[in-house]
Amino acid sequence: MYGFASTIQGTSFGEALAHTLELLQEEGFGVLSDIDVQATMKAKLGVDMRGYRILGACHPQLAHKALLAELDIGLLLPCNVIVREIADHEVLVGFLDPQVMAGLVGGAGVKAVADEAEQRLRRVCTNLSGHTAPV
Amino acid sequence: MYGFASTIQGTSFGEALAHTLELLQEEGFGVLSDIDVQATMKAKLGVDMRGYRILGACHPQLAHKALLAELDIGLLLPCNVIVREIADHEVLVGFLDPQVMAGLVGGAGVKAVADEAEQRLRRVCTNLSGHTAPV
Repeated sequence: MYGFASTIQGTSFGEALAHTLELLQEEGFGVLSDIDVQATMKAKLGVDMRGYRILGACHPQLAHKALLAELDIGLLLPCNVIVREIADHEVLVGFLDPQVMAGLVGGAGVKAVADEAEQRLRRVCTNLSGHTAPV
Repeated sequence: MYGFASTIQGTSFGEALAHTLELLQEEGFGVLSDIDVQATMKAKLGVDMRGYRILGACHPQLAHKALLAELDIGLLLPCNVIVREIADHEVLVGFLDPQVMAGLVGGAGVKAVADEAEQRLRRVCTNLSGHTAPV
């Protein structure tokens, strides 16, 4: 297990993406990177796949605390959120569990940051579909 | 341990960044995201810090193989490379060890991708300064 996810039914990919961004913002996360996996695979390899985005979510205060505790922690930031189309009108939104970062780095400062980030991201995840499943 | 790094002496931050991008490209990695941590911390929190970038390095063929093996692996992609100024004319370039991804996800397909990505990134790391240290 390295994350948690919501599967949203009866939604378009674009609607699910917009709702995810809105809920992340409400919890204080900005999106510092946005990779369009579908477009990248098409452009680089000519491969067709369903909609897939990797968002780099960053809560500035938490990121700053993490950097003060461990300067190299940028290797594990920002926190990835994936939005991917499973089928027509069915979209999975997945979140990397911040405890993965805490487990790799160790230390009380990083653990405290991971705990708060996890709580906030789990609220986003639950609010997307009403329930959460492990990834 | 979750990565490996080179420390380059007698270089500017910009030179180290440019050299890193060049070596990544030689090993087949594009940069799909580029987060300016220094600028973000200044803009969001008014905090001053030395140059710090988080590059999202992606080898398209390897990323595609990883996605075929595990669709949710986007939570652990792309592979982060940090370029951060330690002191004047001293820059650290760090690489997230792809084996972290393999350790979290499991499976032979992902392990094979991690092995090849690790070899390529270790060559970049070694070529930057002639030696490598764990992070």
